[in-house]
Amino acid sequence: MRLVRFRPEKGEKGSIYGILHGEEILEIGEGRKERTFRIEDVTLLPPSTPSKIVAVGLNYRDHAEEMGKPIPEEPLIFIKPSSAVIGPGDEIVYPRASKRVDYEAELALVVGKRARRVSPEEAGDYILGYTCFNDVTARDLQRKDVQYTRAKGFDTFAPMGPWIETEIDPSDLLVESYVNGERRQSSSTANMIFDVYYLLSFVSHVMTLFPGDVIATGTPSGVGPVAVGDEVEIRIGGIGSLVNRIVAEENH
Amino acid sequence: MRLVRFRPEKGEKGSIYGILHGEEILEIGEGRKERTFRIEDVTLLPPSTPSKIVAVGLNYRDHAEEMGKPIPEEPLIFIKPSSAVIGPGDEIVYPRASKRVDYEAELALVVGKRARRVSPEEAGDYILGYTCFNDVTARDLQRKDVQYTRAKGFDTFAPMGPWIETEIDPSDLLVESYVNGERRQSSSTANMIFDVYYLLSFVSHVMTLFPGDVIATGTPSGVGPVAVGDEVEIRIGGIGSLVNRIVAEENH
Repeated sequence: MRLVRFRPEKGEKGSIYGILHGEEILEIGEGRKERTFRIEDVTLLPPSTPSKIVAVGLNYRDHAEEMGKPIPEEPLIFIKPSSAVIGPGDEIVYPRASKRVDYEAELALVVGKRARRVSPEEAGDYILGYTCFNDVTARDLQRKDVQYTRAKGFDTFAPMGPWIETEIDPSDLLVESYVNGERRQSSSTANMIFDVYYLLSFVSHVMTLFPGDVIATGTPSGVGPVAVGDEVEIRIGGIGSLVNRIVAEENH
Repeated sequence: MRLVRFRPEKGEKGSIYGILHGEEILEIGEGRKERTFRIEDVTLLPPSTPSKIVAVGLNYRDHAEEMGKPIPEEPLIFIKPSSAVIGPGDEIVYPRASKRVDYEAELALVVGKRARRVSPEEAGDYILGYTCFNDVTARDLQRKDVQYTRAKGFDTFAPMGPWIETEIDPSDLLVESYVNGERRQSSSTANMIFDVYYLLSFVSHVMTLFPGDVIATGTPSGVGPVAVGDEVEIRIGGIGSLVNRIVAEENH
């Protein structure tokens, strides 16, 4: 099942949740009228509204190697603020403060219910589904600050979408990124150091996770820069494709 | 003016906002009945419900020196998740994963309106007021992870309160911590490297701040450990006192 959040192009404001069947969206949610919409008539929004995004560093062996870092013994977590979230088709703003902004293709899991001190065995019950995520990073500021917060926390640096796929096995999915149609990253979630269940369990022993919260599970090798005007696509097998264009801060 | 958020001991659930005059609270907010409560009859809650807490590392010269770190040229920011927030009198849970948990007394500013790319000169207009903050830190995990997220992100690691003081000059306030009544930190906000206006401006050029969001402005020298059973107090001149007790994870 593919869960979407969207705004009808005309008419009512706010956001509507729905289930996507082919090209058609069936409205869901309490008190809703069960209307149907065609996907080309609506604006897709970020498929959840997370209170926090917990991201994981160096979770693919090949990426740890390309960054010159040892394989971590435990997940290395950091937070991207909810203010950074954008949806499919939204613009990523290249900040004046950086001269090197990178894409990072990632599988994201979306939390389905409140999770606190959950075991890896139970973790699947707390996962609503999966979506595409771009962990946009100002690489120069990441190196300068050591802490990742500024480098990964700019407004628009957390594109997610286009929907939440609820029925998929996350253990061997193709994770790719494309810049202007050219493939830059291509790996499988099978190459993760810590799998999605271990990650949810680990994070839930530190901080309570709430419905809609996101865990971005790390990026494979092949990260690299983008420029203003580029179109960046994150594509995950069995889920879909998330496309965003880069714009200059001056023009935003 | 002192703004409080509280739950009446008996009767209605949820939270009520009010203005504290001496021992008496006057209810505020749209559609409210303007009832009054006595402070000893209610439970004070965290005075705001932040979407994010942006904290600042090494913002006092003396603390940078005691940590063996150079004076930063720019604010060093990191995020504590909203899931870590607790209020006055709530318990701080000492996690099993750590063997060294420290208090850190800090002045926190509470954002009053949406702030994006605000100048230091305008920053005051975006500040609702100030409160006491304890940037509780698992020092051993901070050293191990390098990234601060886990060490500073555990549930209950962001005590704040007891209220928001809206009419105070933040430029020279006494910032102190006490453990079981014994003073451990004592400094003035005049010793900050970056003042509150600069900090709000800096953060707002990275990420949009929303009403209720918190910036914790860094801790002075004298940080040190707590043990299960300890009572930790953060006291700020002209604002008030925030007291929390440490409990073991096993007993929580």
